[in-house]
Amino acid sequence: MDLTQYIRNIPDFPKPGVQFKDISTLLLEPQAVQFIVDTWAQRYADKEIDKIVGAEARGFVFAAPLAYAMGLPLVLARKPGKLPADVEREEYQLEYGTDAIEVHSDAIRTGDRLLLVDDVLATGGTMGAVTRLVERMGAEVVELAFVIELSFLGGRKQLEGQSVHALVDYSGE
Amino acid sequence: MDLTQYIRNIPDFPKPGVQFKDISTLLLEPQAVQFIVDTWAQRYADKEIDKIVGAEARGFVFAAPLAYAMGLPLVLARKPGKLPADVEREEYQLEYGTDAIEVHSDAIRTGDRLLLVDDVLATGGTMGAVTRLVERMGAEVVELAFVIELSFLGGRKQLEGQSVHALVDYSGE
Repeated sequence: MDLTQYIRNIPDFPKPGVQFKDISTLLLEPQAVQFIVDTWAQRYADKEIDKIVGAEARGFVFAAPLAYAMGLPLVLARKPGKLPADVEREEYQLEYGTDAIEVHSDAIRTGDRLLLVDDVLATGGTMGAVTRLVERMGAEVVELAFVIELSFLGGRKQLEGQSVHALVDYSGE
Repeated sequence: MDLTQYIRNIPDFPKPGVQFKDISTLLLEPQAVQFIVDTWAQRYADKEIDKIVGAEARGFVFAAPLAYAMGLPLVLARKPGKLPADVEREEYQLEYGTDAIEVHSDAIRTGDRLLLVDDVLATGGTMGAVTRLVERMGAEVVELAFVIELSFLGGRKQLEGQSVHALVDYSGE
């Protein structure tokens, strides 16, 4: 299935010069979402995944149905202040300043085999931080799965040594 | 299934005196999520739902697998500034100040029969705003579905005239 037909390009969002890939149009096409979820459920069926980790907030939209379809636990990786219990936190660099991502301390256990899910791999900042965070907590990252990769942004460099999978690649701006 | 066994109570979050109902522990139990999604998929199977609307961000976690299971389009109701294309916006009152919720202008069409999904019905502020917003856009709200209702907060008053469904009720603080 050619998913690009369902992905809308929004020029200059969130700032001038950026071509934002809008997956909200894809979410209106059930057969596209089912293709994504079913492709991944098949890809990871025999990978002995223990838990799926979804990154806030658009990552939830794909991680949650995948967890449902595979019958696996779902862990939420959230922005600071959103998770109510004890958390582990990892900071990462933005163009200007830093941000951070958190998971509940008791949501990840030593030896957990994790699949990390987000909608878009751009610079890899967020998912690099999620990877460092869960590895610090003793888990193993089996793969990082994205619907879209913006490979011209070089996000895989942030994820070096990890297995990275994307269904759609935009290789130029 | 008694879902309350999977819901964690967090005292004094996000502020003193509030007993926060944490669904992140429930998300770690696949059979609980499948119970919720499958119960709703059955409940709404013959209701001629056109689209499911999920409210940011925990609402996505239930709305997305339900949309997947039912083969229905998913519309994201998001906080201001998150959606990249043209939006319709509705403001609502907070205890101090106001907040707002947005959906893409082209995501809802006149006559759409919608199911609105969120994790918790508390004061009903957010989902009251989503309801007003989509009705203003010409859609019909078939029902609002929540995993948890905190009925002592009186959220149904904000949703008067609407059909409201919740799987778990906490009737006292």
